[in-house]
Amino acid sequence: MNKTRLEAFSDGVLAIVITIMVLEIKVPHHAAEFSGLLKLLPVFASYVMSFIYIGIYWNNHHHMMHSMTRVNGKILWANLHLLFWLSLVPFATGWMGENNFAKPTMTLYGMLLLMAAVAYFMLQSSIIASQGEDSVLKKAVGKDWKGKVSPVLYIIGIGFSFFNEWLSGAMYVLVALIWLVPDKRIERTIAHTKD
Amino acid sequence: MNKTRLEAFSDGVLAIVITIMVLEIKVPHHAAEFSGLLKLLPVFASYVMSFIYIGIYWNNHHHMMHSMTRVNGKILWANLHLLFWLSLVPFATGWMGENNFAKPTMTLYGMLLLMAAVAYFMLQSSIIASQGEDSVLKKAVGKDWKGKVSPVLYIIGIGFSFFNEWLSGAMYVLVALIWLVPDKRIERTIAHTKD
Amino acid sequence: MNKTRLEAFSDGVLAIVITIMVLEIKVPHHAAEFSGLLKLLPVFASYVMSFIYIGIYWNNHHHMMHSMTRVNGKILWANLHLLFWLSLVPFATGWMGENNFAKPTMTLYGMLLLMAAVAYFMLQSSIIASQGEDSVLKKAVGKDWKGKVSPVLYIIGIGFSFFNEWLSGAMYVLVALIWLVPDKRIERTIAHTKD
Amino acid sequence: MNKTRLEAFSDGVLAIVITIMVLEIKVPHHAAEFSGLLKLLPVFASYVMSFIYIGIYWNNHHHMMHSMTRVNGKILWANLHLLFWLSLVPFATGWMGENNFAKPTMTLYGMLLLMAAVAYFMLQSSIIASQGEDSVLKKAVGKDWKGKVSPVLYIIGIGFSFFNEWLSGAMYVLVALIWLVPDKRIERTIAHTKD
Repeated sequence: MNKTRLEAFSDGVLAIVITIMVLEIKVPHHAAEFSGLLKLLPVFASYVMSFIYIGIYWNNHHHMMHSMTRVNGKILWANLHLLFWLSLVPFATGWMGENNFAKPTMTLYGMLLLMAAVAYFMLQSSIIASQGEDSVLKKAVGKDWKGKVSPVLYIIGIGFSFFNEWLSGAMYVLVALIWLVPDKRIERTIAHTKD
Repeated sequence: MNKTRLEAFSDGVLAIVITIMVLEIKVPHHAAEFSGLLKLLPVFASYVMSFIYIGIYWNNHHHMMHSMTRVNGKILWANLHLLFWLSLVPFATGWMGENNFAKPTMTLYGMLLLMAAVAYFMLQSSIIASQGEDSVLKKAVGKDWKGKVSPVLYIIGIGFSFFNEWLSGAMYVLVALIWLVPDKRIERTIAHTKD
Repeated sequence: MNKTRLEAFSDGVLAIVITIMVLEIKVPHHAAEFSGLLKLLPVFASYVMSFIYIGIYWNNHHHMMHSMTRVNGKILWANLHLLFWLSLVPFATGWMGENNFAKPTMTLYGMLLLMAAVAYFMLQSSIIASQGEDSVLKKAVGKDWKGKVSPVLYIIGIGFSFFNEWLSGAMYVLVALIWLVPDKRIERTIAHTKD
Repeated sequence: MNKTRLEAFSDGVLAIVITIMVLEIKVPHHAAEFSGLLKLLPVFASYVMSFIYIGIYWNNHHHMMHSMTRVNGKILWANLHLLFWLSLVPFATGWMGENNFAKPTMTLYGMLLLMAAVAYFMLQSSIIASQGEDSVLKKAVGKDWKGKVSPVLYIIGIGFSFFNEWLSGAMYVLVALIWLVPDKRIERTIAHTKD
């Protein structure tokens, strides 16, 4: 089975997911004032967050695929399972943005992030299983504290969503930052070590 | 003619089909209660089924293309013919989900699955014809009981759809399971044999 | 400049164009009778025609790119110009289908096909110009009677569209058939010659 | 990290952005007169402009990636940042077209073009930083007067947008022309020199 085509298909789906989300930002019809745009701010903010999340998934997916040597049916379906949850992100984003981050929408968004994290973990496990004892990915995952902390923070965020939407949102933003910020620091450290 | 570009175009169309289906799950406007989501359950269920079907087609298409050695005009159009029926899946899925799996929507969905199966068979035949007597694909297809059983089950499902939508749906779910489940078992058997 | 990326981008745009057209076939809301589908027949018929046209363009584009050796800025923009007109096909298709092939919609559809044909011709000329005197594409185009007949038939179809929509549509169907049918016959002839 | 997949993902997003913009040209429902189309002229004009802008970005992105030798996390996120602003182009285009180029819509459009230019500059700087002292891209950028003039013209256009929408639009058209026209002239000059 062909790794290139699996990557190309995943790239295609992720590129479409990240782009069709913008269709949820409905153009205010026959209203050309900035005040009309201000009402869209929550929709825009939810779009920014989901764009970053899909970006993080694309980035991580990319690295994971890189370490993969062979594809089997289990990996293929585990990958489709991950894409399934990510394909629902535009829906959850639109619901959240349109309802001004109301509590139930934060619960759903957190559950979707959690399901995607579970699906990612399952895909990782399938690849490790296919690589056997000397799995390159297994060693990389051993040091991956981010992958272990994220689901815990999602669950805390879901818990918060039942009584305070902003604390809930803070958890989801925190996970995004964890993935965004230190990557750069680590690379800089590596670059320093090389000098 | 170039096989890579045929694959890339098919991947593109299938990635878009699988992703735009989610646009049929309309965000409940100005309603942030979970009760609003519950109404979407049939739409969601139909989305899951179609996602799996497109996944199966992508998987099988992938294998079939792998065994293909050269592309001619007939294969190219047989491939577009298959993509045509699959491109209608989001429409049939949306109609089925919005109308709570009403009988006529189940008839249409089954007919679409049947047409896609026929188109797949025609594409297969075109590739076999292009490969001549020693066709690799012909040998593979000889053992392919799933490809022969599926259209029969679709026809039974279409028949059921005129008096009971759930029996009809059960047939479509059954075909999906046939393609999903035993593949893994077969791979495990192969893995055992290798040990 | 990179030919592969030009092809990939064109494939992406054409794959999206061919697939988003299906979004113009609006799901009949809360109407699960077949009678609701019958009203969609003109929309469906217009979808079939445009699907075939985009398929023909993808096929021809594919062949033309194959004969191309180098890309320059002129070719790049001539290609984007062609994609521009093809990107409008979903709009013209939707307008035509929803209005039951009314005369003005047939005029617009024909004009769009004509503009796409002109853009295709310009792209072809840019490639030939870049190849110089021994242009492979120039020789191929010399025998290309289809490319010369099509615009004439489009113009006749546009003329018809002002007094009879069916004669107009017949012209557009005729062009599609010209591109679809004889290709197979020619291939068969070539196959016979080889025997 | 893999350059090919970065290009493929960017191509995918740009292909989708350029194509879904057409969905903002809403089919006039149950109105088959040309007068209905005339009302769409501003929407169509805004579509043409944005199509050209995305085409310019795709073209330039393509050249910049060509000169890139290695990808790091900073480049990857700088690229996603650029795609983020470009993904908002369909929204700003739709708002502008539907409101007949009203002043606030011209302000937003200009600000979006400016943000995209800033993001492009940041991506460029990330690539130059990764290439070190002998950066190929750094030399190319040194002669790039277009990249320096464009943001200035965007800011002038944004300023104009508060009292005259046409002067504002003229600035945006001017930038597009700057990128479109002289490229051809330069290539011709190069071709002459070679003769």
